[in-house]
Amino acid sequence: MENFTFYSPTYFVFGKGEENKAGELVKKFGGSRVLVVYGGGSAVKSGLLGRVTDSLKGAGIESFSLGGVKPNPRSGLVYEGIDICRKENVDFVLAVGGGSVIDTSKAIAAGAVYDGDFWDFYMGKRITEALPVGTILTISAAGSEGSPDSVITKEEGMFKRGASGDAIRPAFSILNPELTQSLPPYQTACGITDIMAHLMERYMTNSSDVQTTDRMIEGLLLAMIEEGPKAVANPDDYEARANIMWAGMMAHNNSCGVGRSQDWNSHNIEHELSALYDCAHGAGLAVTFPAYLSFAYKHDVARVAQFARRVWGCPEELDDEEAALMGIESLREFFTSIGMPSTIGEFGGTEADIDKLANVACYGDGRDGKLYGFVELSEDDVKEIYRRML
Amino acid sequence: MENFTFYSPTYFVFGKGEENKAGELVKKFGGSRVLVVYGGGSAVKSGLLGRVTDSLKGAGIESFSLGGVKPNPRSGLVYEGIDICRKENVDFVLAVGGGSVIDTSKAIAAGAVYDGDFWDFYMGKRITEALPVGTILTISAAGSEGSPDSVITKEEGMFKRGASGDAIRPAFSILNPELTQSLPPYQTACGITDIMAHLMERYMTNSSDVQTTDRMIEGLLLAMIEEGPKAVANPDDYEARANIMWAGMMAHNNSCGVGRSQDWNSHNIEHELSALYDCAHGAGLAVTFPAYLSFAYKHDVARVAQFARRVWGCPEELDDEEAALMGIESLREFFTSIGMPSTIGEFGGTEADIDKLANVACYGDGRDGKLYGFVELSEDDVKEIYRRML
Repeated sequence: MENFTFYSPTYFVFGKGEENKAGELVKKFGGSRVLVVYGGGSAVKSGLLGRVTDSLKGAGIESFSLGGVKPNPRSGLVYEGIDICRKENVDFVLAVGGGSVIDTSKAIAAGAVYDGDFWDFYMGKRITEALPVGTILTISAAGSEGSPDSVITKEEGMFKRGASGDAIRPAFSILNPELTQSLPPYQTACGITDIMAHLMERYMTNSSDVQTTDRMIEGLLLAMIEEGPKAVANPDDYEARANIMWAGMMAHNNSCGVGRSQDWNSHNIEHELSALYDCAHGAGLAVTFPAYLSFAYKHDVARVAQFARRVWGCPEELDDEEAALMGIESLREFFTSIGMPSTIGEFGGTEADIDKLANVACYGDGRDGKLYGFVELSEDDVKEIYRRML
Repeated sequence: MENFTFYSPTYFVFGKGEENKAGELVKKFGGSRVLVVYGGGSAVKSGLLGRVTDSLKGAGIESFSLGGVKPNPRSGLVYEGIDICRKENVDFVLAVGGGSVIDTSKAIAAGAVYDGDFWDFYMGKRITEALPVGTILTISAAGSEGSPDSVITKEEGMFKRGASGDAIRPAFSILNPELTQSLPPYQTACGITDIMAHLMERYMTNSSDVQTTDRMIEGLLLAMIEEGPKAVANPDDYEARANIMWAGMMAHNNSCGVGRSQDWNSHNIEHELSALYDCAHGAGLAVTFPAYLSFAYKHDVARVAQFARRVWGCPEELDDEEAALMGIESLREFFTSIGMPSTIGEFGGTEADIDKLANVACYGDGRDGKLYGFVELSEDDVKEIYRRML
């Protein structure tokens, strides 16, 4: 196990109706003038935004609002939010939505107290100061409710970049599984895939002697395999939604990723799929992960075989190679069973796209022609992985 | 799943040599005049205390020290520590040791800023204010390094009581597995048992639909079953110690105990064993847990059978009753295999003690004659459980 630090100071308030504590919680964490950030009309139509505003008002908190956050959130709205914060002396940013809304809120919170351009943080500057952020989560997927990360796309050039820092870890996060029940099966399945990918990116490690975190990851994956299909089949299943929601947080606050190298090749490879085909991140990951593992498993057959046996129940009698391949096939079948795609053809992709995809994956974002994760990948390797998605 | 809040703001610094960051960390969390609390001579002899003092000095921090904390820590030393804090304007309490040292430090930290008698907190008053506490952990067992709890014994009457509050959650905890390598096999096994008990007390629940936390607990137990015997057989096994240390923290910071009722009958029943026989808490738990489960499993055979199948690998073919009983036997055998006792006879106990043990367990600490956990236990039930320890 490698040396590490772990810090997850967020105050989590979990369960039915807990969004009505928004006002009380903002006050507890020092807010008196709040910018409420949200996405499309669903938070308005469902009455959620109204309940939150009422709760803030009831606690004597003044609120301002900024709607219109879209998936793959853009820098333009961040600048708007920063302007509001400065003009109105906002001292707290409250995100009501999923990962995109939370990431936008984090960017606004950091930018509002920074003299320069907030984009500096997304070019590599560590975030060390920010307004406190609270979240009311409506989609189980990105894990941003418990993470120190934010991903924003700059409109000029459409660069998608991440920033990080303990200062943008949410002060509190309200997790009410009821709020995720309105999510249709396809989006639910995309979220499930994203959560499982966060776990598997941590599982595929080159560190040895990491039994405790291995077992935690396996446990969370087993819970997702059991609860995921229930939520897809019956969106109103509160209990399945609740299990997924807590697993989604645990998958990404790094409790089970500490002390070990992590992979993240699949996220990097998927990135170009959502960029080119405008597909959902989760759907892209469902296509990417089995294709990637079918290429990468030879790097550490024993690890992938362990994953296959413990998570997918592959028989002990099989040798490592057979078990690994069967586990990868089980993963693919699971994604298909919850309605996820398994080829880029389903996004309209063809063999003609492969060179371009691989080139951007390997040289985009200032990369040096290789991807460095569980396995080191050359451009040819990446092409081969994309080819396995046809 | 039930509504809950979860809050674990401690900054964990894990790995080899990290105690040398003590000064830097105390400073980061606002300390400039520190009371260093420790136990017996081993922290001095091993050189640990010297390294910590050097690190504090190097960071320009003034330090005072209070040694002599014993297992089942006493109120007397807490009063001494409070006096030093007040006289010397101490603004940070640093625990160097195991659960007893940390619990003493938490009590001092709360008492130092409280006008009344610190014992009020151990009579039920919630701790809402305290000096910040840091810990340098030397024993994996109690989980106090990540918890909001403290247990102290009042010398007048020898009452053992707990206090709680987010204000005494450690600001930081340094977890260096090397520091646990000097612990002999018996104490190591006691710690392993305590950690497993913390997990099983959470596992035995009357809440339904708690798949995610079930799976996390099972994963952590499986890691302990694999890594525990390695550390007992070879105290210098850094990697086993590291896996146990992280599992010990995760077992008790409540990540995997949220949203579900918990048991704690075994801890309450064990309490009287360590009081009467002066045995180690972990050794008492090793005797108690299998005896308790052999009585209590009928309350929810399916749950105990699930525990037996997923944690102890009991065959799927067995019916729930057979699996449950086999799982309980596997648990007992595991404890025996790491050198733990399985009867009170090994502490010198006899049948003649049973009435007294049960009476104190059921009526001590202001109890009403029953224990309320996974199963509600009458005094006769508790007698029967003690009888199964003969």
